[in-house]
Amino acid sequence: VRPISMVHHLLPASDGELATLSFLQDVMDILLQYLVTNFDRSTKVIDFHYPNELLQEYNWDLADQPQTLEEILSNCRIALKYAIKTGHPRYFNQLSTGLDMVGLAADWLTSTANTNMFTYEIAPVFVLLEYVTLRKMREIIGWPGGAGDGIFSPGGAISNMYAMLIARFKMFPEVKEKGMAAIPRLVAFTSEHSHFSVKKGAAALGIGTDSVILIRCDDRGKMIPSDLERRIVEAKQKGFVPFLVSATAGTTVYGAFDPLIAIADICKKYKIWMHVDGAWGGGLLMSRKHKWKLNGVERANSVTWNPHKMMGVPLQCSALLVREEGLMQSCNQMHASYLFQQDKHYDLSYDTGDKALQCGRHVDVFKLWLMWRAKGTVGFEAHIDKCLELAEYLYNKIKNREGFELVIEGKPQHTNVCFWYVPPSLRNMEDNEERMNRLSKVAPVIKARMMEYGTTMVSYQPLGDKVNFFRMVISNPAAAHQDIDFLIEEIERLGQDL
Amino acid sequence: VRPISMVHHLLPASDGELATLSFLQDVMDILLQYLVTNFDRSTKVIDFHYPNELLQEYNWDLADQPQTLEEILSNCRIALKYAIKTGHPRYFNQLSTGLDMVGLAADWLTSTANTNMFTYEIAPVFVLLEYVTLRKMREIIGWPGGAGDGIFSPGGAISNMYAMLIARFKMFPEVKEKGMAAIPRLVAFTSEHSHFSVKKGAAALGIGTDSVILIRCDDRGKMIPSDLERRIVEAKQKGFVPFLVSATAGTTVYGAFDPLIAIADICKKYKIWMHVDGAWGGGLLMSRKHKWKLNGVERANSVTWNPHKMMGVPLQCSALLVREEGLMQSCNQMHASYLFQQDKHYDLSYDTGDKALQCGRHVDVFKLWLMWRAKGTVGFEAHIDKCLELAEYLYNKIKNREGFELVIEGKPQHTNVCFWYVPPSLRNMEDNEERMNRLSKVAPVIKARMMEYGTTMVSYQPLGDKVNFFRMVISNPAAAHQDIDFLIEEIERLGQDL
Repeated sequence: VRPISMVHHLLPASDGELATLSFLQDVMDILLQYLVTNFDRSTKVIDFHYPNELLQEYNWDLADQPQTLEEILSNCRIALKYAIKTGHPRYFNQLSTGLDMVGLAADWLTSTANTNMFTYEIAPVFVLLEYVTLRKMREIIGWPGGAGDGIFSPGGAISNMYAMLIARFKMFPEVKEKGMAAIPRLVAFTSEHSHFSVKKGAAALGIGTDSVILIRCDDRGKMIPSDLERRIVEAKQKGFVPFLVSATAGTTVYGAFDPLIAIADICKKYKIWMHVDGAWGGGLLMSRKHKWKLNGVERANSVTWNPHKMMGVPLQCSALLVREEGLMQSCNQMHASYLFQQDKHYDLSYDTGDKALQCGRHVDVFKLWLMWRAKGTVGFEAHIDKCLELAEYLYNKIKNREGFELVIEGKPQHTNVCFWYVPPSLRNMEDNEERMNRLSKVAPVIKARMMEYGTTMVSYQPLGDKVNFFRMVISNPAAAHQDIDFLIEEIERLGQDL
Repeated sequence: VRPISMVHHLLPASDGELATLSFLQDVMDILLQYLVTNFDRSTKVIDFHYPNELLQEYNWDLADQPQTLEEILSNCRIALKYAIKTGHPRYFNQLSTGLDMVGLAADWLTSTANTNMFTYEIAPVFVLLEYVTLRKMREIIGWPGGAGDGIFSPGGAISNMYAMLIARFKMFPEVKEKGMAAIPRLVAFTSEHSHFSVKKGAAALGIGTDSVILIRCDDRGKMIPSDLERRIVEAKQKGFVPFLVSATAGTTVYGAFDPLIAIADICKKYKIWMHVDGAWGGGLLMSRKHKWKLNGVERANSVTWNPHKMMGVPLQCSALLVREEGLMQSCNQMHASYLFQQDKHYDLSYDTGDKALQCGRHVDVFKLWLMWRAKGTVGFEAHIDKCLELAEYLYNKIKNREGFELVIEGKPQHTNVCFWYVPPSLRNMEDNEERMNRLSKVAPVIKARMMEYGTTMVSYQPLGDKVNFFRMVISNPAAAHQDIDFLIEEIERLGQDL
């Protein structure tokens, strides 16, 4: 019988070494076992419980008294039992799927190093790796010599907000001290298919969602440049000041790439900051075959690029890249003298914390850096090419298949494939309101059944006048042709009676 | 001889299980070895290299071709070699120090689960644990039944920014759509010793740093309520609208607690949102002995509380708690239909993502929850009481010691102890400008030497008219009396010739 171990028996307790090694090895064994099942197609993606059920399944409460380490291990097992297997080959629910083993190892190391990105003083290696990695990403974007600036931020929404913040500051630096009251009424432009974070950022920054003008898209979800120009002129005539165009490279639902060259020309003509939200599509820059879809990105003033999406880096890892160096620093710095002492003994340009909105900032770079070392650029390229090939495979399989109807015409540009499943009962119906109404209820029911069976997960949504349809996306390195086949058959199995 | 292993030999490769287990176990062995030395007083806290040296020590570049897994393990060893040992008993440099073994295990599990907090659908357990944990924190703040709202955000600066955002929205909900142009000129109030993030937030939100009015503090760094009231009245007379008072519970440098009850009375009188920035001091709520220092916090409208500081949770873990339920949601929601589908089959109140500024959001709750289970509330209490006892021990040791001069009178309220070390050469000098000038150079030199020897790390800064002084803080669970003794003697050793 093992003696009862409690947390106070672990390090830093003076005789805590053995107990610590034993406890952490036990945790590791639980994690390794979970990992292996994660990739096993015969296991469920999810063991679904409704919230009120899950609250009652287990006592999750926080108490005054400590639990034993045995109980802590049980907590870990239980947490994993009800977790989604996000690395499972049939998990397609989000833009971020899959679990890379080197990325995971790097994240474990990051947790173990447990430091903060604000100064070189306390994160020397990680600050240097951020410098090296951001420079490399800027090179790939196409900025000469990789010059420029940037930061890893907590997610694409925040990266986009940074872009808006910096664009505003570039045009009206007095906004930092004087606020929006001192500057003209600003307007930003983005497509109607862009990510909601552009509006969310505008709300937060005091610009207001009404000042985000949504530009029309063509049938494939790409911003129409002539509409952009028309709306810019219109806004200027009303006395508003256009300060930002946020183009999207890889929209969330359709995976569309806005025409960046045409947008860059317009931004140049009207002297407007051009941001490219490549949170989802930025990864394609790693592929010689697909990077043409982002042609013109090198003319952007700023780019959001989330390696935690298409490049499979563990969550979270989002970069904002900025072409002009020093602007982030001027925009955000507050010169806190307790942190950014000016009389330190090393080169202060490595104390990058004051360019951030955050004070404390998690180390998000190491997992990307280590994965890059392990895969090389060619490894990311192979992953991306394979995911796009799988998307095309899915497209080819369903384009003429009975019961499947594509939402947009033509081969997918990204890995997004959007489609309706039309159950037999609806196939011979006239295309009227009743059919639309019934069709809108199909995807939610199939999705609920998927989760209850736990066999696969894929997302759905309505968009504009199009009722609920499935949005398949493939970023999961574990996914193979058989999983695409499975998904199609599973949708048919779960939806045929509807 | 082991065969050469590459990342593509690992899972999800179909025969990757053994290679994966072996690789991850190798990583784990490196981490465990690092961990054990982390707590060993005979090892250095830091193996310091200047940035340009460190860039040349190793080839950090990102290449086209992959490295072997052996090389990846080397990268891990090198990264840890140059990392700061933030769990080392003599690491006192930041408000976040120490490394908790259960917190670490929980962070490893979080990485392994690799999911995103935006919906219950993909983070069922973690969403429930956030719900349970935030409710518990609100109970401890003193809000009846733990009612209210909140979120874990990427750091205290962002938590404070949320408070400002919500306070503005509460008073002028039209700001979300119309922006700052549609509402009166706002002003916020915080003390001159408050954290720089209040100004940073005001700059970002389009309020402007000039609209943050800094209230005077007494000698111990506490906001003077009469000055607050005077400045509110003054601002109103000028036609400005006071919308937020950000009181500080535990200032960054002095560790001062603003008088929350008096501030609450003023906020009530003038109908102003009361925020308490307890990023550093919030942890004291866990201690029956020390929580009186936050008396009045239950009257706040919102509270920032960073468990990654005084409670020793791994970075990062910051909570914003809000008394009024639903306000965060109204303020931030954008109803993205691809994510927050309204026709899902479960209770949608658990899809908390739309109340966040972020879209993707890292799981920061599990490490806090698991540590709480392992330590119990009493365990956090014991940790906090011990750290405060150590601070008092330091204070008592140096208050009459030759060569040490306290910056503020009286026993420390938090674990901050601020002091000058006065080398023998300055001890008999007249208190004039030359002495101040020379004294200002002492702490930076001692700090640089500390880092070069790698023996300990403690922060310094100037404040107002006070030249560079050391700010000792103790949140490190590994620290003991001997480490305080060591710090004092090390400062004397490194500074006696100055």
